[in-house]
Amino acid sequence: MDIHTLTKELKIKNDTKIVMLVADGVGGLPLTADGKTELETAKTPYLDELAVRGVQGASIPVLPGITPGSGPGHLGLFGYDPLQYVIGRGALEATGIGFELQPRDVAVRCNFCTLDAQDNISDRRAGRIPTEESTPLVEKLNQITIPGVETFVAPVKEHRFVVVFRSENLGDHVADTDPQATGVPPLAPVASDPGSERTVEVALEFLDQSRAILADQPKANYLTMRGFAAKPALPTYEQVYGLHAAAVAVYPMYKGLARLVGMDIVGQATTLDEQIQLLDQHWAEYDFFFVHFKYTDSTGEDGNFDGKVQKIEQLDAAIPAIEGLYPDVLIVTGDHSTPAYLKSHSWHPVPTLLVSDRCRPDPCHQFNESECLRGGLGQFEAKYLMMLALANAGRLGKYGA
Amino acid sequence: MDIHTLTKELKIKNDTKIVMLVADGVGGLPLTADGKTELETAKTPYLDELAVRGVQGASIPVLPGITPGSGPGHLGLFGYDPLQYVIGRGALEATGIGFELQPRDVAVRCNFCTLDAQDNISDRRAGRIPTEESTPLVEKLNQITIPGVETFVAPVKEHRFVVVFRSENLGDHVADTDPQATGVPPLAPVASDPGSERTVEVALEFLDQSRAILADQPKANYLTMRGFAAKPALPTYEQVYGLHAAAVAVYPMYKGLARLVGMDIVGQATTLDEQIQLLDQHWAEYDFFFVHFKYTDSTGEDGNFDGKVQKIEQLDAAIPAIEGLYPDVLIVTGDHSTPAYLKSHSWHPVPTLLVSDRCRPDPCHQFNESECLRGGLGQFEAKYLMMLALANAGRLGKYGA
Repeated sequence: MDIHTLTKELKIKNDTKIVMLVADGVGGLPLTADGKTELETAKTPYLDELAVRGVQGASIPVLPGITPGSGPGHLGLFGYDPLQYVIGRGALEATGIGFELQPRDVAVRCNFCTLDAQDNISDRRAGRIPTEESTPLVEKLNQITIPGVETFVAPVKEHRFVVVFRSENLGDHVADTDPQATGVPPLAPVASDPGSERTVEVALEFLDQSRAILADQPKANYLTMRGFAAKPALPTYEQVYGLHAAAVAVYPMYKGLARLVGMDIVGQATTLDEQIQLLDQHWAEYDFFFVHFKYTDSTGEDGNFDGKVQKIEQLDAAIPAIEGLYPDVLIVTGDHSTPAYLKSHSWHPVPTLLVSDRCRPDPCHQFNESECLRGGLGQFEAKYLMMLALANAGRLGKYGA
Repeated sequence: MDIHTLTKELKIKNDTKIVMLVADGVGGLPLTADGKTELETAKTPYLDELAVRGVQGASIPVLPGITPGSGPGHLGLFGYDPLQYVIGRGALEATGIGFELQPRDVAVRCNFCTLDAQDNISDRRAGRIPTEESTPLVEKLNQITIPGVETFVAPVKEHRFVVVFRSENLGDHVADTDPQATGVPPLAPVASDPGSERTVEVALEFLDQSRAILADQPKANYLTMRGFAAKPALPTYEQVYGLHAAAVAVYPMYKGLARLVGMDIVGQATTLDEQIQLLDQHWAEYDFFFVHFKYTDSTGEDGNFDGKVQKIEQLDAAIPAIEGLYPDVLIVTGDHSTPAYLKSHSWHPVPTLLVSDRCRPDPCHQFNESECLRGGLGQFEAKYLMMLALANAGRLGKYGA
């Protein structure tokens, strides 16, 4: 049975407030065999106090050994099985730049590339053309018109940009045109089902017009298309949990992921302090708040152990302000680990803390990787966290009599 | 793969004896943040001695955060995935009063209700008519005759009673007639599949005759029907485990649940001592014994922390007598937690103990919620407990070569 079938059946509305504070990539590794992780190194008196009061565990983002991207990592935390719900690459890229996908959209990740005189690809990334050079080209492509179709072209970074086609009857089962090799021509877009044939026609028209527009460019004289993807059909937080939910995030990707599950995006915060202010301002309006803190991930990605420690301490300092709102359930977790040692996302389970007045005490006195192994939540798949949140908020009825 | 596909394939018959002692709702919570749970408060020298010898873990009744009723709670312990096997509400109600459902039966939960002069419901529970007043009315309804159908009407409590229709071709896909509102008439029973149309005819006939019988009642002048349910199709313990199983329970609900999985009900015990005596008397006849102890749940439901502590100590005192029978595998567990603090069933994992001469030692020295977190069984879904029981009894062969 799908877990949302259960939550839909058992959900109860009440006046409780749930806060899920996601410290992106918070889990880490020591730099040396006998060292401490970033969380173990950081001084986190407020999180540790929560660890004493609450219950802790280790969240497995997808399955043991599986390192998630931001999409599956957050879907898991939101209670959407990341192996069941897949956000197509084009849709994720559009989401990541803050594009609000509509149900009729098909989003495509595009790369500028260089064609030689024989129309073979000589550079799949157009010399990694800088963003300031690629952005004006994207602007030009945005002037393409295709009858009956709205097209949106938006820059991402360097040679990367996104195209969104909006029209009726656009399927997303279209193969990539990037041949993943040089010295050969780009592939034609090919539909793998009849419902996507119209999308191929639209893509071909877009490619034709782009060819003419880019013809005089020295490097970025053409483009390849990958990851054709419609807006994923995710049920909303209201539908599956009965929760009116808000997201307080700084970066477009996380706002976008929250929007996909029906959360409202509140405010335009650029700092954690501003995020907390927004939480306060909108406290009465929502049942559930997703608060996203990016910098534990970005410092980890940079291999900046000390920087990550510092960001964890910054997060810790914000805890009293959140507690001051008296949430009925406060969760602190991450969507995955990003050990500075690895300079990348990893599969390691994520320390996860839940505080409510219905927690069964466990022996944990600190919030970190070694303590969470002794915690009352054990090791659990992230997709179950929302059920625990609802249960602790008194928002789940009894299953069966 | 369904776990019973595995156990059917791998099961081995031998002379071992397995005892599963279910302390209903045994898991608890402290009353204060720094307090102890009921189990941690109780003096349990015999259970603690088992904890030293055996292996302990925390059983998740259904899934994290899901609070089970008695039906799903016990199905899990019996190794029947409670999300796959669902006991319909009518069938559970009939089971709960000790009615032995047959394969051709459809059971229905009924409420006496009050109709006003316009035939609208003015009270959905007929003023919560006392049991001593409703029982004679149930007796009258038991005289209803419907050609080709056996009908059984039995009181439950106050306004609640059960009707069972026994005949060929009775489907149970029939909607409730309780409109869940007053000032409106009862709904008509409606079939949602062709196989249930005969059931609707039978129900209408029953309702018609009831109307006449109850016409002169001041309060209980009509009835509503809910939860139409056939006997659930559960494979038996013999089929899936090769176990000849007996249940030693005091309350009808637990006898009924055991009967649904093919256990024999032995004796008519009213106390734990009598249950142990029955265990002794029938020791040679069966491979598996389910012993149900109700009072850890009922004291929890009453919010009676001290009472629950006392009942746990009473259970502890019975352990030597069970050990004296030398079971090859002795399991002590609960179907869910019922913290006195919550006065209700809860989702919290249940301390679970397994003793056999094949246990790998773990560091646990007491039987309770905090110790079980350090146990060798870890946190596990209850549905896997029977496989561990069989393995420890030498009753499961190797999977694959």
